[in-house]
Amino acid sequence: MSAADAAASTASSPAAPGLDTALAARLKRDPQGLVTAVVQDARSRRVLMVGWMDDEALHRTLTTGRATYWSRSRQELWVKGETSGHVQYVRSASLDCDGDTLLLEVDQIGPACHRDTDTCFDGGELEAVVLAPEERTA
Amino acid sequence: MSAADAAASTASSPAAPGLDTALAARLKRDPQGLVTAVVQDARSRRVLMVGWMDDEALHRTLTTGRATYWSRSRQELWVKGETSGHVQYVRSASLDCDGDTLLLEVDQIGPACHRDTDTCFDGGELEAVVLAPEERTA
Repeated sequence: MSAADAAASTASSPAAPGLDTALAARLKRDPQGLVTAVVQDARSRRVLMVGWMDDEALHRTLTTGRATYWSRSRQELWVKGETSGHVQYVRSASLDCDGDTLLLEVDQIGPACHRDTDTCFDGGELEAVVLAPEERTA
Repeated sequence: MSAADAAASTASSPAAPGLDTALAARLKRDPQGLVTAVVQDARSRRVLMVGWMDDEALHRTLTTGRATYWSRSRQELWVKGETSGHVQYVRSASLDCDGDTLLLEVDQIGPACHRDTDTCFDGGELEAVVLAPEERTA
């Protein structure tokens, strides 16, 4: 969808510009009105981070081409990279079968994590049992 | 870590077997005591689903080699694939910088979604503005 089409698609509710109503009806929000957003690098395929979106954040993400979240700590909308320059350009967005989780594929500019690591999971590896093939009896 | 090592690592708290206490202290749980778990297919690199874990689910995931979640709808522990056979064998697990999200890389047996699709995001693609390179001025 082009930017012009996106603008047109929301023009039906000019008094309350925001998320497409059909999509809004599919969302299963948590008690804070948020859905989970998993962010994956479109090129490396690495999972970069998880953020949270209210309806407005999702609307902006889908219509501006830049990933926008709801900051639970600051209680405000947050355009990723607005201050750091580490923008996420949206390549695709999908809603899961439950309607409570989004998957964004993005082109990440710079590191995704505020610690300047590529992903928010770098350095967080946990010790885990990995079963050998012969032990894999479901 | 082998299964034997994993058993030994939790033997220090035999009265309350469960998650390693150092790891437990790093977790930032939601009001329901849960952390988010993003699940990625280790081979295809596709994001399969998002689940939720309490401390016991995480402990079992890390020590049994099979992804185990807390079902928010059924309010019970849930070994993925227990009834469907669509098991997730753990390949790695990482905790994010905030301590509230896990990333699991798994070998997924069969489809990950209860709808028999490969992932829970299949069929959920949303219309999204994708900026052309010349429009990408952060």
